[in-house]
Amino acid sequence: MSEQWIVGVDLGGTTTKLAFINLNGEILHKWEIPTDNSNEGQNITRNIASAIEQKLIDLKEQKSKLIGIGMGAPGPIDYETGIVLNVVNLGWKDNFPLQESLHSLTALPVAIENDANCAALGEMWNGAGKGADDLVCVTLGTGVGGGVIANGNIVRGINGAAGEIGHITSIPFGGAPCNCGKTGCIETIASATGIVRLAKAELSKADANGTLALIYAENGKVSAKDVFDSARNGDELAKKIVDEVAFHLGFVLANIANTLNPDKIVLGGGVSRAGDILLDPVKMNFSKFAFSAARDSTNLALATLGNDAGVIGAAWLIKNKLTV
Amino acid sequence: MSEQWIVGVDLGGTTTKLAFINLNGEILHKWEIPTDNSNEGQNITRNIASAIEQKLIDLKEQKSKLIGIGMGAPGPIDYETGIVLNVVNLGWKDNFPLQESLHSLTALPVAIENDANCAALGEMWNGAGKGADDLVCVTLGTGVGGGVIANGNIVRGINGAAGEIGHITSIPFGGAPCNCGKTGCIETIASATGIVRLAKAELSKADANGTLALIYAENGKVSAKDVFDSARNGDELAKKIVDEVAFHLGFVLANIANTLNPDKIVLGGGVSRAGDILLDPVKMNFSKFAFSAARDSTNLALATLGNDAGVIGAAWLIKNKLTV
Repeated sequence: MSEQWIVGVDLGGTTTKLAFINLNGEILHKWEIPTDNSNEGQNITRNIASAIEQKLIDLKEQKSKLIGIGMGAPGPIDYETGIVLNVVNLGWKDNFPLQESLHSLTALPVAIENDANCAALGEMWNGAGKGADDLVCVTLGTGVGGGVIANGNIVRGINGAAGEIGHITSIPFGGAPCNCGKTGCIETIASATGIVRLAKAELSKADANGTLALIYAENGKVSAKDVFDSARNGDELAKKIVDEVAFHLGFVLANIANTLNPDKIVLGGGVSRAGDILLDPVKMNFSKFAFSAARDSTNLALATLGNDAGVIGAAWLIKNKLTV
Repeated sequence: MSEQWIVGVDLGGTTTKLAFINLNGEILHKWEIPTDNSNEGQNITRNIASAIEQKLIDLKEQKSKLIGIGMGAPGPIDYETGIVLNVVNLGWKDNFPLQESLHSLTALPVAIENDANCAALGEMWNGAGKGADDLVCVTLGTGVGGGVIANGNIVRGINGAAGEIGHITSIPFGGAPCNCGKTGCIETIASATGIVRLAKAELSKADANGTLALIYAENGKVSAKDVFDSARNGDELAKKIVDEVAFHLGFVLANIANTLNPDKIVLGGGVSRAGDILLDPVKMNFSKFAFSAARDSTNLALATLGNDAGVIGAAWLIKNKLTV
């Protein structure tokens, strides 16, 4: 039998990532198309179907090579019907039948899953969590997202809200306001946005000095990357901010480990690119707050798939249907 | 076919509970035997096997009615081998082959599981969590234990430490020491022991007065039940303690809901018998700290099976093998 390919799709608000992926979870071809939110989002699935057809033509491959499309979608999903609920930024006015629409346009089996969960599945299939049956992925980006895998399957929860790790409260009193309406969520501290907020608070103090203060004085702004780069170079103010972020992240992740004792907790997203300057103090704080049996067995690791995790995890949805 | 029975066994340090349970999870006969820790625990499985034989004789029933034995054991289990690890208080010197020993003595299929997980499975099968695929059970007793069920299966974690909810840290700085070696664990606050500790701290203050203070003056001690009874009668000092317990429990349970979004979080154990005087303020604090989608869908409820949860959940282990 000739090699079979799965289409992995990672639907984002501005860009849609696509890839042809083999049954080992390896990307063979990947490309992107803009996400067309106009016409109440009606073009989205048509453009995806066309992009797949066109890529097959470019590669001189037959459609029979494709065994299905797995897709990550940004927002809550009704898994019974494959409908994406209330995703305003994709242009869909009402609940959009994503799975059915893409299936009727391509005649291929289609599986959909929340995009944060896809990233977790990708890391499980062929990334930092390879081989783990129990895995928690935390994406530290503009916000903080997460995906929980237990016994080899995504945990969605009764209302699809499992994995909302960004909204775990780390500061019960007097924390910063979060987009979710609560205060003190870990997202307000450990996201890129949160780190910049903490930095600005420190930098606005009269006695602020050092590398990071110089960057701020020069550019009128700082990024999360500036904070980590300055900390790596020994800047005291930056180190203080990294310590605060690492404390809260270690605290929250330890409490997740006390509940789930996963094989691995994988940190991904732009902030995680800071590497050991972040990971090492997070591990130290994790050790303080994790129950001994979990502390000794749950490992913290950096994600390895970067932006590819989403399409690989989406493809896993089809792979998983083959093997069960 | 005549009715089939499952034997549910809940092995405790001093008492072993046994029950014959039908395939609907209903207890038909239940009884207890003392746990004989002498002889390096070698008598434990022999006594269980004899107790089952004797009960069948008493009931004039054939052994063929029994389709298996499910057993909850206090301590970590190697699930590959059915060996209970390092349970000193049962007298077992080395790791004891519980499953194999009981199987060879009875010639029945034997399944074993950690006892806190059995209680969760019992509540899922025929208790407060009936019908829920995603469930977290928290046992508030002398300590605080827990069991996590996701997608209909127990989450054990990589080292069997999943569900160690009692050791979730709620007070990161300056909390009371916990038996586990950490400080500020929810067990130090929301267990019967923790509640008494909080009460004594309040009662030792010079201005302590009210019902609870009178009980303390009279008896030289107070129980968790005294605290809840006094709070129910409007005692201010007792209400303050209940508020503190409810705050931390609501905070911890909300963060579990943010991670797992279970259908239900079920509170069991002696402390949960306090009922609404505890549950209502826990719910209020839970609402503050839970992400909206989880807050609106994860329900807090009191356990309904009491001490029977363990044997029913143990029996479920055998029932589950029939249906998969």
